Amino acid sequence: MLVSEKMRDAVNKGSLIRAMFEDGIKLKNQYGADNVFDFSLGNPDLSPPTEFAETLSEVIKENKPGVHGYMPNAGLEEVRKAFADYVTEQNKEEFGETFVADNVVLTVGAAGGINCVLKAVLDPGDEVMVLAPYFVEYGFYADNHAGVIVQVETDRKFRPDPEALAKSITPKTRALIVNTPNNPTGAVYDAGELKAIGDVLTLANQKLKRPIVLIADEPYKKIVFDGKKAPSIFASYPYSISVTSFSKDLSIPGERLGYVTISPKTDGDAEELFLAVTLANRILGSVNAPALVQRTAARLLRKNADLSVYEKRSKLLSEALADMGYDLTPPEGTFYLFPKCPIESDSDFTVYLRQELILAVPGTGFKRSGHFRLSLCADEEHIRKSLNRFKVARENAMNKKPLF
Amino acid sequence: MLVSEKMRDAVNKGSLIRAMFEDGIKLKNQYGADNVFDFSLGNPDLSPPTEFAETLSEVIKENKPGVHGYMPNAGLEEVRKAFADYVTEQNKEEFGETFVADNVVLTVGAAGGINCVLKAVLDPGDEVMVLAPYFVEYGFYADNHAGVIVQVETDRKFRPDPEALAKSITPKTRALIVNTPNNPTGAVYDAGELKAIGDVLTLANQKLKRPIVLIADEPYKKIVFDGKKAPSIFASYPYSISVTSFSKDLSIPGERLGYVTISPKTDGDAEELFLAVTLANRILGSVNAPALVQRTAARLLRKNADLSVYEKRSKLLSEALADMGYDLTPPEGTFYLFPKCPIESDSDFTVYLRQELILAVPGTGFKRSGHFRLSLCADEEHIRKSLNRFKVARENAMNKKPLF
Repeated sequence: MLVSEKMRDAVNKGSLIRAMFEDGIKLKNQYGADNVFDFSLGNPDLSPPTEFAETLSEVIKENKPGVHGYMPNAGLEEVRKAFADYVTEQNKEEFGETFVADNVVLTVGAAGGINCVLKAVLDPGDEVMVLAPYFVEYGFYADNHAGVIVQVETDRKFRPDPEALAKSITPKTRALIVNTPNNPTGAVYDAGELKAIGDVLTLANQKLKRPIVLIADEPYKKIVFDGKKAPSIFASYPYSISVTSFSKDLSIPGERLGYVTISPKTDGDAEELFLAVTLANRILGSVNAPALVQRTAARLLRKNADLSVYEKRSKLLSEALADMGYDLTPPEGTFYLFPKCPIESDSDFTVYLRQELILAVPGTGFKRSGHFRLSLCADEEHIRKSLNRFKVARENAMNKKPLF
Repeated sequence: MLVSEKMRDAVNKGSLIRAMFEDGIKLKNQYGADNVFDFSLGNPDLSPPTEFAETLSEVIKENKPGVHGYMPNAGLEEVRKAFADYVTEQNKEEFGETFVADNVVLTVGAAGGINCVLKAVLDPGDEVMVLAPYFVEYGFYADNHAGVIVQVETDRKFRPDPEALAKSITPKTRALIVNTPNNPTGAVYDAGELKAIGDVLTLANQKLKRPIVLIADEPYKKIVFDGKKAPSIFASYPYSISVTSFSKDLSIPGERLGYVTISPKTDGDAEELFLAVTLANRILGSVNAPALVQRTAARLLRKNADLSVYEKRSKLLSEALADMGYDLTPPEGTFYLFPKCPIESDSDFTVYLRQELILAVPGTGFKRSGHFRLSLCADEEHIRKSLNRFKVARENAMNKKPLF
């Protein structure tokens, strides 16, 4: 009776994930880590670029008074300027010469950033639309601030459906979260799709008292295949906010650095929104993003881990699965695959996979049943070793081999 | 209309603090930073111990795969073990041989930790008691999780009042936050006072459906004067949670590392509480405390910045103010002073101080009028230079010299 009713429910739900996680550890202990194919967790395994450790060491050596002290809640001034330069350069077409320093808030990762934005815009009962399948933590984030998640289906190829979106808007709609490149599907929305989303929101705003805020969760933005680029969210809609992190770009998710950029095209009260996001950063307890990594990342904005590795892994496994007969919409980015299960039940199918020592998350965990998600945070050799197992699992499932 | 109603109010309130902060910058530009006596902000100015930069460099050099990756939300296993060893050692009398690794959650500072604890225990409308005067951010933290702050007055020497506490308990009471050593008063509650608080809660629990949780916010725990030690919260009450940080001990508030310890004496569902605090860490967006500083702090648990400096500053200024005729309860710890104003209005008196280029926060900002708070994050020479100005401000105020 120490835990609140609300959190008790959440802890119970969380216990399923924990059980899965613990099961994975058990399997690895039993069969050896090399013989278990854990595609369940999205934990980037690439090394950070070599410049990361070098720059950290430089930053530590500079050791001026106050470098580890408190700072403005939005981040160190010089760091925010460097970030603003970078964001402006990346969005030249959208922003022109507008300098966005006062539109950037440094946060504790993208998850911290989304929480700050939702805290800034949601009144109790406000609705937050998400495009399903989706990262279910968004449900927690909305609920943290008394918001309510409204799930809008994408089509069977995971493309956004403007009509379905329009139908989901109510007088309570406050925000739409789009996650592109997408976890779990790997879909990357093109400029036309984003524009269509923006147009639906713009039309809806005419009948609403408050404009809908478009929150783009973009931590995978640099992981796009075939030499393509994910388009800027800022071209599609004026009330846009981009949230991203260095978790994938620099492969440092444990260091917790992200940032929020409010579109400089936002009408009127962009400044108030900036102040509210900044205040949220303070009162939710982050206070500011960690100083050391702020100063380090500011010098590495144009550096990445070798993200091309993910494309190779993705192509390797997608092509192999397609050859085996899996129905898979080829991902355009990220390190996830989201194939259809060869049988109806995704929970049953992940048990067939587990029997072959492959760990995957059922699509139901992302609110689309009949699929499973694979996270490719393992090297190509390991992936290759798993291939025959995917084949066997598929055959066993289709032959209804008894589950034990 | 982008910002929620709730945050708009908070931003407006925040704008007063911002105005004060900007006024300080203006004064420093006008008169030179050396001639302005800014005692308004609690930003530790001591250097971290030299071991901090050395250990950071070591940690960076070790650079094993995955060191910047995701981890369990409660923190790195080996770090949590080191913290548990330390906490056990510090609470030998209370814990005996009980090892507390599963009671420790690493958080983004103490502010992040308090938010996680409140998220874990509060249902909407639950009441959180605080002993006034108090750090008003607690009001935001409770409100983040739909809790309601209930202010309980301490006596005129800032000692806790068990009777007033008992009277403030209702069926909705869920938690009490005590902050000892205290911001803004510098009071350090002794073992007897903590026991008296614990006894009030224990008695109340007999009539309540859920035990009241005692949250001790202890970031100033090592800043206690005259060779004394702040007693362990765990001796006073079984449902105790300590929240602290390295912001003052290592003087690294910008790096955002704190931790929560749940009393191993907690009956029954301490494990569920641990899981709920850990889940809160994840879903509020922190996910985990920053990895680099986790690993560094684990090796520096018995090291501090030279905290004796604060005692010297505190004694210097308290004695000088007392000599001038200020009514001041001598602080027993922290780097704050909370004298009575020589006139009734604390907002007027801080204007008299400002005319002498001294910046202080009115007691009303801590919910006790007629006082002012001084934060001694400036060196002794600077404090000495300010002394005559305190004298002049007092005389001007008492002589009702017109404010301009």
